[in-house]
Amino acid sequence: MDTGGLPTLTQDDLVVRTLGERSFPSPLDGGLLERGESLHYVTEDDRVLVDSSLSRAVRRGVPVEQLPSFEPGGPRRTLFFDPARTRVGIVTCGGLCPGLNNVIRGLVVELYEHYGVRYVLGFRNGYHGLTADGEEPEVLTPTSVQWINSQGGTVLGTSRGSQDPAVMVETLRLRRIDVLFVIGGDGSLRGAQAIADEAEARGLPLAVVGVPKTIDNDIPWIDRSFGFQTAFGRAAESIRSAHTEARSTRNGVGLIKLMGRHSGFIACYATLASDDADLVLIPEVAMPLEGERGVLAHIERVLDTQGHAVVVVAEGAGQDLFAASTAADASGNAKLHDIGALLRDRVTAHLAASGREFSLRYVDPGYAIRSVPANAHDSVYCTRLAQAAVHAAMAGRTSIVAGRWHGRFVHLPIPLVTASRNQVDSKGDLWLSVLEATGQPVFV
Amino acid sequence: MDTGGLPTLTQDDLVVRTLGERSFPSPLDGGLLERGESLHYVTEDDRVLVDSSLSRAVRRGVPVEQLPSFEPGGPRRTLFFDPARTRVGIVTCGGLCPGLNNVIRGLVVELYEHYGVRYVLGFRNGYHGLTADGEEPEVLTPTSVQWINSQGGTVLGTSRGSQDPAVMVETLRLRRIDVLFVIGGDGSLRGAQAIADEAEARGLPLAVVGVPKTIDNDIPWIDRSFGFQTAFGRAAESIRSAHTEARSTRNGVGLIKLMGRHSGFIACYATLASDDADLVLIPEVAMPLEGERGVLAHIERVLDTQGHAVVVVAEGAGQDLFAASTAADASGNAKLHDIGALLRDRVTAHLAASGREFSLRYVDPGYAIRSVPANAHDSVYCTRLAQAAVHAAMAGRTSIVAGRWHGRFVHLPIPLVTASRNQVDSKGDLWLSVLEATGQPVFV
Amino acid sequence: MDTGGLPTLTQDDLVVRTLGERSFPSPLDGGLLERGESLHYVTEDDRVLVDSSLSRAVRRGVPVEQLPSFEPGGPRRTLFFDPARTRVGIVTCGGLCPGLNNVIRGLVVELYEHYGVRYVLGFRNGYHGLTADGEEPEVLTPTSVQWINSQGGTVLGTSRGSQDPAVMVETLRLRRIDVLFVIGGDGSLRGAQAIADEAEARGLPLAVVGVPKTIDNDIPWIDRSFGFQTAFGRAAESIRSAHTEARSTRNGVGLIKLMGRHSGFIACYATLASDDADLVLIPEVAMPLEGERGVLAHIERVLDTQGHAVVVVAEGAGQDLFAASTAADASGNAKLHDIGALLRDRVTAHLAASGREFSLRYVDPGYAIRSVPANAHDSVYCTRLAQAAVHAAMAGRTSIVAGRWHGRFVHLPIPLVTASRNQVDSKGDLWLSVLEATGQPVFV
Amino acid sequence: MDTGGLPTLTQDDLVVRTLGERSFPSPLDGGLLERGESLHYVTEDDRVLVDSSLSRAVRRGVPVEQLPSFEPGGPRRTLFFDPARTRVGIVTCGGLCPGLNNVIRGLVVELYEHYGVRYVLGFRNGYHGLTADGEEPEVLTPTSVQWINSQGGTVLGTSRGSQDPAVMVETLRLRRIDVLFVIGGDGSLRGAQAIADEAEARGLPLAVVGVPKTIDNDIPWIDRSFGFQTAFGRAAESIRSAHTEARSTRNGVGLIKLMGRHSGFIACYATLASDDADLVLIPEVAMPLEGERGVLAHIERVLDTQGHAVVVVAEGAGQDLFAASTAADASGNAKLHDIGALLRDRVTAHLAASGREFSLRYVDPGYAIRSVPANAHDSVYCTRLAQAAVHAAMAGRTSIVAGRWHGRFVHLPIPLVTASRNQVDSKGDLWLSVLEATGQPVFV
Repeated sequence: MDTGGLPTLTQDDLVVRTLGERSFPSPLDGGLLERGESLHYVTEDDRVLVDSSLSRAVRRGVPVEQLPSFEPGGPRRTLFFDPARTRVGIVTCGGLCPGLNNVIRGLVVELYEHYGVRYVLGFRNGYHGLTADGEEPEVLTPTSVQWINSQGGTVLGTSRGSQDPAVMVETLRLRRIDVLFVIGGDGSLRGAQAIADEAEARGLPLAVVGVPKTIDNDIPWIDRSFGFQTAFGRAAESIRSAHTEARSTRNGVGLIKLMGRHSGFIACYATLASDDADLVLIPEVAMPLEGERGVLAHIERVLDTQGHAVVVVAEGAGQDLFAASTAADASGNAKLHDIGALLRDRVTAHLAASGREFSLRYVDPGYAIRSVPANAHDSVYCTRLAQAAVHAAMAGRTSIVAGRWHGRFVHLPIPLVTASRNQVDSKGDLWLSVLEATGQPVFV
Repeated sequence: MDTGGLPTLTQDDLVVRTLGERSFPSPLDGGLLERGESLHYVTEDDRVLVDSSLSRAVRRGVPVEQLPSFEPGGPRRTLFFDPARTRVGIVTCGGLCPGLNNVIRGLVVELYEHYGVRYVLGFRNGYHGLTADGEEPEVLTPTSVQWINSQGGTVLGTSRGSQDPAVMVETLRLRRIDVLFVIGGDGSLRGAQAIADEAEARGLPLAVVGVPKTIDNDIPWIDRSFGFQTAFGRAAESIRSAHTEARSTRNGVGLIKLMGRHSGFIACYATLASDDADLVLIPEVAMPLEGERGVLAHIERVLDTQGHAVVVVAEGAGQDLFAASTAADASGNAKLHDIGALLRDRVTAHLAASGREFSLRYVDPGYAIRSVPANAHDSVYCTRLAQAAVHAAMAGRTSIVAGRWHGRFVHLPIPLVTASRNQVDSKGDLWLSVLEATGQPVFV
Repeated sequence: MDTGGLPTLTQDDLVVRTLGERSFPSPLDGGLLERGESLHYVTEDDRVLVDSSLSRAVRRGVPVEQLPSFEPGGPRRTLFFDPARTRVGIVTCGGLCPGLNNVIRGLVVELYEHYGVRYVLGFRNGYHGLTADGEEPEVLTPTSVQWINSQGGTVLGTSRGSQDPAVMVETLRLRRIDVLFVIGGDGSLRGAQAIADEAEARGLPLAVVGVPKTIDNDIPWIDRSFGFQTAFGRAAESIRSAHTEARSTRNGVGLIKLMGRHSGFIACYATLASDDADLVLIPEVAMPLEGERGVLAHIERVLDTQGHAVVVVAEGAGQDLFAASTAADASGNAKLHDIGALLRDRVTAHLAASGREFSLRYVDPGYAIRSVPANAHDSVYCTRLAQAAVHAAMAGRTSIVAGRWHGRFVHLPIPLVTASRNQVDSKGDLWLSVLEATGQPVFV
Repeated sequence: MDTGGLPTLTQDDLVVRTLGERSFPSPLDGGLLERGESLHYVTEDDRVLVDSSLSRAVRRGVPVEQLPSFEPGGPRRTLFFDPARTRVGIVTCGGLCPGLNNVIRGLVVELYEHYGVRYVLGFRNGYHGLTADGEEPEVLTPTSVQWINSQGGTVLGTSRGSQDPAVMVETLRLRRIDVLFVIGGDGSLRGAQAIADEAEARGLPLAVVGVPKTIDNDIPWIDRSFGFQTAFGRAAESIRSAHTEARSTRNGVGLIKLMGRHSGFIACYATLASDDADLVLIPEVAMPLEGERGVLAHIERVLDTQGHAVVVVAEGAGQDLFAASTAADASGNAKLHDIGALLRDRVTAHLAASGREFSLRYVDPGYAIRSVPANAHDSVYCTRLAQAAVHAAMAGRTSIVAGRWHGRFVHLPIPLVTASRNQVDSKGDLWLSVLEATGQPVFV
């Protein structure tokens, strides 16, 4: 939804890789859908415009038919794979996110009930499960996944970090897997791309289809990542809790650190949802601490006028306030400095220096936000994403993710979604809404 | 999001009415936004494309710049009204919907805190509050609305039915109201249009700006109506409850009636969210009861294979199963026949005739779905809709509603949103997802 | 807790039936508990006083040691059954109640993990599962019950109505069941007693131990029935919902029918929890409708002073307002007249006659209250009740239920808990609290 | 409920202090209660037995009438204060606890609506509001407190630490306060006692009545402290969240620190409610880390058999593992060493030394547990406690708290409830239930 700052695309960026000619009739034809009609099938000329801005379209100066567009998701009349003989693998990678189990369940149910696939294997603990050391994978059936969506986390387990594509493709070959679904973030999707490339190099007709996962909502070209609504709803409860504490003491300060390595979406939406915060700090916007127009002086002013203050900070904010470092975690992500602790210490020192009696409470809901089951919206979204991913894979699409763009399901080439990052546009209307809701100034 | 069946628009349908020249500088300029920059202001050439389908755009056969487009929402650099002297009224009409209080609060806070408006009046009990008999309106301030979003319903009260536009405009004139915000459904928006027309006829510079309210999500040209997510989340709980009952007895049948006079969105989304239903019946799709390929035989088959069955029916479904009638309610809406009771009786008779022991439980969550507070997503959405409505009104827009289309806030002429209805496209991907999730056949 | 109106007991009422000499050492001794100490074991002289009122104790005029007392629950040092060879059955009967799955899980885990029992059979669909026609029972293990407590209802299914004790005992004999746990209400507990009697008559050493289930909290001599807190918490939401509707219209009347055939506990507690009701009507207190000091006139007065009114009625209230009837349901319970519908019609007629414009909304949450998963408190309580039931059965107790009295777990003979009924004492402090909270008068 | 380890009382400990002769008829007589009857009034000979154990009663060797007993709570026929002229103050002290606003609301409503008191003052920010520096108190009315129970925290604010009784009594005298309600923990109740003593020394007829507040449930002689159920329900969610994380990775360890300075009730109940923990560590039970039968070896064994482990630790557990210190907080409570951090570091070091790959996640829900609104049960309990406190004060009781014992409301002298502490009895049935639920051994 809030995608104003994304780069300009050309149609070349949007070409979808396919495994080859499709020759198997879709079993949906004789079952779910009415025989003789093709009502729900996606046709080849159907495309989804990338850009909804008329002025940007005009500025391109090309005919309508050359405007960049995505391939839509949905069922195709003919398939690349013969469902009765297709063997499918599923793997979940990286950090937890609400909805993982819903996606797994959606994939399994769609494959079994509607395509008649009879063999679905769940690999354990992320890409580690695709190595020689991996735990034995689990056979998944509609019965075995029936209740998993009432639980948070992933029943398949997960892990961070990459593995050798050659090893992983060998595992898939030995287990005769035709389709691999990867539910993961940008690093894991790069891994999926490597698997697809390796398979192609070997001449293996393997479909690799991703379902993009990012609790931070920072994957580009999708309206909203699954689990994001659940996550910011839970984060809003933490803000409310800190607000309650802050209001209950004289000069109470509530400081909440929320997820958001590069993108402040959770911080922004949780703030708008709770309407309790006086100040939101995100990676996309500078947050000078000192000076008349700095963060610390503003907190002091809020205390003066209101008697308490609530400050929300995304974990990736204010990294320039630290000396540079080069540490990284298992997934190769740069290790973030702890802006929450720094802010806690600096606010404490500043208010203490002002001679004021005050009480600062620091809240870091952390895992509580990402381990809950998906809410109603995300449950629907995960089921539909999974359905779209199955349709794509059975039609022989590979190296893509299933996403939603302007309300329609689309196929996005993996390189497209890993090449840039969705961020809060500091000149866009989401950030304006935050400024309006908090009343915070532009810090200088 | 699910708007496949909407009519084709021309640019003439999208022209926004304005009260006149704008001459007051926006106070946001000196306050919230950085002086000297116009980062967040909406410019005149910015437009939002109506259609995201490339093939439909191509079929139009017009140059890019003539593709139909909406006026975007957001703050303008100059205003029609002088905020310091602007007097504002708010009225909520029709049935309850989660988020009404959030919209009220959002309007009041935006008007006071960011535009510096100092007089906001809440009219009581819908349009009745704009008549001579109306209760005394209430002065609304940021303090008085601070906590209202934790409550469902509307603090202003509401009523059904229309009132004489001349009387209402006279009330507004006497109270020197410059801007009227109407939060209401299609009937109420027609009333808003009548007020705007009456004011124009009298030469009164009254801005009438709506925030479209429909728990059924049936207002066209908006991605999703506010409160809808909260409502279907709550409805999903009712399905889950009926499912629990059905599973706990031999041949248990759970029958749930949900809201949805003309559109089955709540039934569809609640079903996808709970993943517990075996059958969904909506107004948009025929539901023959008898025969081998009818609803009753299908329920019997589900009982045979699964031991229990869960049936969801939207209140407007199957109206053709009744003799025609012409009754109407206070708002002039045709009175619906009670499809829930009919289905309960017919299923009971059918199963009894089959000699089977069974137990049918009928659930009608009714008001429970619409009287709850907004969830996190709807809270954010309501706040932002309210902000967009305020920006529009202060810039002198009238006879419009604030909506969101493809993720962007837009201005929609009231006649556009009351001329047609958003419905579930029985050939679109939402309904396909439902068919996939329930496994129900096409009834003949 | 609210048990003021219960009959006076003698010690003879409290004698617990046992199967015979205990000779097997408890396996808890070598495992869970410290060898050589008997810290947690219940000793024979430990007894729990029935009455906490000193004045009533004094009025008995007997020495302290003759005051009536219950046998406490808890583990015994020696057992009647040899755990390694004990075969256990579980059955759930009657209407749903939050916590049924928690009790099942608690029984299975305690039996397996702590006593080392290796054979637990779940009979299907209540007592019907103990007949020749019953579905095949299910083998229960800690793994199979691991997640069931996140679901409402009962995984074993349930049914109403009694079955022939001779048939049921024969089923148990054929399956060589030593211990039967019955989770059910007063009718089902009478059935359990009949099973125990039949087994005794046949010389079968069968332990029949109940866990009393009543969502209405109407089983006597227990502090609170399991699931009751969850149920009234959910009921309070329905009151809140009706309150929201009532407040949002002029002269809005919300009428909520809640469970409570003979006892108004849910109505009373839900009212106190929501603090939204103006009037509560329960079976224990007369509710004359007409006259100056009747219910209808009071509702009118509330509307006059407050503009809206919220009325809560328990399903068993006001039965004297109907002509007598003798209909009964499958469990033999007298069929109740529909007081909710009567009240809806009478209030509507009365207010219409007064010439007042008004809007009445009738809410019957019904199954929604009883099909939800147990809340945190009830989860704990169910687990502990199950543990107490297992300790009792392994020690050879039979014809008893496990209950909690004044905070301690106790063994209650089944005839004791089926002989009378726990009701709201119209002269006690719970009802006084309700009167204080609603401000309603005593109707005459 | 779980009060096995409390000291033995004599009747002298239970004598309630009163201000003097009662001479004003209760206004409840003519209003709420039926004239001419005294149904709900508490009579002088009504007493509540302290001990429910028959064997302990017998061991006392005294006649029945000399068994220790509490004075019951409830309305009296005659009052000490003339309600129409009574001026009341309310103060909330110490840490937040769910239900504070419910108690405030309950006091105000009972005083106004039922006794006709017309002047209730809310002192701000705990005892600080009773000093010369205190903020101006707030006049409380039924209207001003109408919605506060939907919010967590306390609308009056709170503070830690004691103030000079002479100063506080002087403030009360100047404001002509007759009754002071103190909602606070043991330190604050000692302050209340000091105020009552100072008033008595000055000959001021001031009633000081407490409502005991402890989120840890560690105040003795009450069945359960208000807010406790809400708190452990919220804590159970944190355990569930940590469990989800632990299960989703290989050798995942979830470590949750919960409140509980001296008493492990929250840890025990949250564990029983979630049924997810493998190990619970509380202040009442030693937790040696090293050795074959120590905590670290047990965690390793759980990982070996189960693949993940969840450890719950109460903040006051394992204090003997640290060097002694004498630091104290503003309320004079000894500052606790951070057992959570120590355990995190020691488990990490131990597992790393074992060469095992693992992933430990540390969760400290902290304020999230205590700042939420009260659940349904606690809402009822708070309202009824407040009603009992008002009845006591109007009858001239002072230096007492209102509590509930064995299901009945009672008056407890303040010195009684501050003299000892309610703790988990390591030989009682609650701890046994925990051992049964977790399967943890006794550590040596």
